[in-house]
Amino acid sequence: MKAEIIAVGTELLLGQIVNSNGQFLSVELAALGVDVYFQTVVGDNSSRIQQAIEIAQGRADIILFTGGIGPTEDDLTKDALAAALGRTLHIDHLAMDHVQRFFDERKITMTENNRKQALVIEGSTPLANEIGLAVGLALAHENKYYIVLPGPPREMKPMFTDKVKPWLQQHALTDEMPIYSKMLKFAGIGESLLEDKLIDLIRNQTDPTIAPYAKEGEVTVRISTKAPSEREAMVKLDALEKKIQELLPEYMYANIDVPLEQLIVDWMADAGLTMSAAESCTGGLLMESITRTPGSASMFLGGIVCYSNEMKKKLLNVPASLLEGPDAAGAVSPEVAEVLAEQVRMIADSDFGLSVTGVAGPGYSERKPVGLVYVGLAERGRKTEVYELNLKGTRENIRLRSVKALLYRLWRRLEARKVETPLEGSALQ
Amino acid sequence: MKAEIIAVGTELLLGQIVNSNGQFLSVELAALGVDVYFQTVVGDNSSRIQQAIEIAQGRADIILFTGGIGPTEDDLTKDALAAALGRTLHIDHLAMDHVQRFFDERKITMTENNRKQALVIEGSTPLANEIGLAVGLALAHENKYYIVLPGPPREMKPMFTDKVKPWLQQHALTDEMPIYSKMLKFAGIGESLLEDKLIDLIRNQTDPTIAPYAKEGEVTVRISTKAPSEREAMVKLDALEKKIQELLPEYMYANIDVPLEQLIVDWMADAGLTMSAAESCTGGLLMESITRTPGSASMFLGGIVCYSNEMKKKLLNVPASLLEGPDAAGAVSPEVAEVLAEQVRMIADSDFGLSVTGVAGPGYSERKPVGLVYVGLAERGRKTEVYELNLKGTRENIRLRSVKALLYRLWRRLEARKVETPLEGSALQ
Repeated sequence: MKAEIIAVGTELLLGQIVNSNGQFLSVELAALGVDVYFQTVVGDNSSRIQQAIEIAQGRADIILFTGGIGPTEDDLTKDALAAALGRTLHIDHLAMDHVQRFFDERKITMTENNRKQALVIEGSTPLANEIGLAVGLALAHENKYYIVLPGPPREMKPMFTDKVKPWLQQHALTDEMPIYSKMLKFAGIGESLLEDKLIDLIRNQTDPTIAPYAKEGEVTVRISTKAPSEREAMVKLDALEKKIQELLPEYMYANIDVPLEQLIVDWMADAGLTMSAAESCTGGLLMESITRTPGSASMFLGGIVCYSNEMKKKLLNVPASLLEGPDAAGAVSPEVAEVLAEQVRMIADSDFGLSVTGVAGPGYSERKPVGLVYVGLAERGRKTEVYELNLKGTRENIRLRSVKALLYRLWRRLEARKVETPLEGSALQ
Repeated sequence: MKAEIIAVGTELLLGQIVNSNGQFLSVELAALGVDVYFQTVVGDNSSRIQQAIEIAQGRADIILFTGGIGPTEDDLTKDALAAALGRTLHIDHLAMDHVQRFFDERKITMTENNRKQALVIEGSTPLANEIGLAVGLALAHENKYYIVLPGPPREMKPMFTDKVKPWLQQHALTDEMPIYSKMLKFAGIGESLLEDKLIDLIRNQTDPTIAPYAKEGEVTVRISTKAPSEREAMVKLDALEKKIQELLPEYMYANIDVPLEQLIVDWMADAGLTMSAAESCTGGLLMESITRTPGSASMFLGGIVCYSNEMKKKLLNVPASLLEGPDAAGAVSPEVAEVLAEQVRMIADSDFGLSVTGVAGPGYSERKPVGLVYVGLAERGRKTEVYELNLKGTRENIRLRSVKALLYRLWRRLEARKVETPLEGSALQ
């Protein structure tokens, strides 16, 4: 089964809103095993909507519309679809009662144009709209399936989940096998290097399918398969996951769709571990990305943004000899990264102390290249680790990648502790 | 001129990402006076991309592609377009040098597939990609205009602004009356209240047009008009700007498209003023949004994220009596906001000290409602100001709005200083 999503609304074509409905419906349809080959956005214009319908009929079995079913003259989706199918429109009485009740309850006189929101196409199944006023519809016509939903996501989403999904399963998807997916998450590796390592697998693998994509310093690989049951799907997915993990043993941090920050926060909170941070070039981004994560309050104690050298000296006891003078290592140096990580850990009395110092650009005087960053990782009772990064991109990219690289190192340390802890435990027995 | 935007990428059809490029390009094309009648999303499949091209050729003059120009086998946009137009592809040498340099600088061997990123279509103008590796292109072919851009927004946006816009104006939009816009920026006011105040003006105004939209705690009002010259446009735009400013005298902070942070950073850097910050619930977001802004290094000294009460006491000298005990004001209180702002200002020896403490939710024990936030603003030689905010929304929204509200207060203070400073100056004469 192939589907096409047609979002109707001039506000989308003017860029006033983003087509988030297209994204939601794509995810939902993929989960039902339906392939979406095209998404179309068309304005509030009857002939162009009909043109889009004609094109979609030539390339899809299921055509889903969102938007253009409100009360105004610009709301043309149902008219255009009825015209394209040669069917009539009529008022659905239940939907009309719902509209009327809305105005009665508010003691407002209903204007005539609101009757339009209760219109359905002849022979269709009305889809009640519990949040808003405009009724949706589902219709089978000449071996194609048509679904009409409102534009506002808060109305559209529950209607899809509660009404469209069962309708499609009953009418259109009787022969389809559901699709099952797993999301494998990687950090500390770029998309192209990851693809390079997986290229033979990607080329020779057709079921399950492999789809890598990069987002904000992390890489996700989605593996998917169709199967009659979840159990059968998981056998195939688990086997492929194992193969992928063998090719990239160091970098995979999860097999569910979770950001690295969330994993670290949950893990540290569960283990009763705490962290603090000292940031120079990232200026708070590291701490922001940790504290953005729910649950961080119990593992993150705080930290210091030491943008100026004065702050580095005053709050983090960086010796002036490291910062000043012609032969000094300078603020962007492994030595300073080390002091920052160790000092903030001691000041906060946390288990881990993280630090970042580098050149995010533009405009910096220490004669060090833009993109040179040192990240430090201090741990109670362990030698502090410092890593040099050579990053490219905008100021924003360099900052983001510095944070992800440091969190990747922290995650590796936590992984190592996981292996160590049982040993210590058994030594106690 | 009619345009169609074709976003290429299976990740869009699977709903893994939202088509934000479609929105960005729609806004930009509208500003150029180009009508977008359709947006299409198609997967990484050559024959379906060619099918989309054929349809677009029948209904648009300008066809813009984003995505599908990376190094992998799934990246098919340029091949499909070349095939559809019957043109060949060749390596652009400047683009190839750029790709090669990227790998050389990192001392990594370039894999063969990366050569693909330097491909352009015969007869096209290459569009250099300064952020990423894949070169774009612009091409006039049989009275149609084709633009190919990369998918990642951080690469695509500057390429559109710096290269596509002038190319379109020179090649495709020579007969169009140019459209001129002004962006009026507001802070400290929500979108619906702003619309409420402008509603009569918006209803009765057709030229220039008025389009308000909200983004990340700021509201922008774009006013636009077509005119034969900039001078004639500005007469109309300035008159409307004046009317709008009269309706919203306190909230408009700029008549160019500049974020509030940038304005504050530039202003303080020029005036030789410095700032520092102490953040609790915003966990670094305030400092991150300041340091994200180029030029912040000379005015931002640093600050402290005092997530735990221990850190508040230890680093910011918050008296235990304010934090502990049944009758204490608690960490989320105007008293603590005041101490935080004053202490961080003194520790950093900065002109301004900013603070935030509040409940961003979820899960908080002090029995204070989610959304209650206090922001403090300390200034050298002045009484510290503290404001109570009662915010709604997700954790992310509450944090973002807290930061914007505090920056709005800082901006108001800087505005007030602007008025005061000349008086002091004249007193010296």
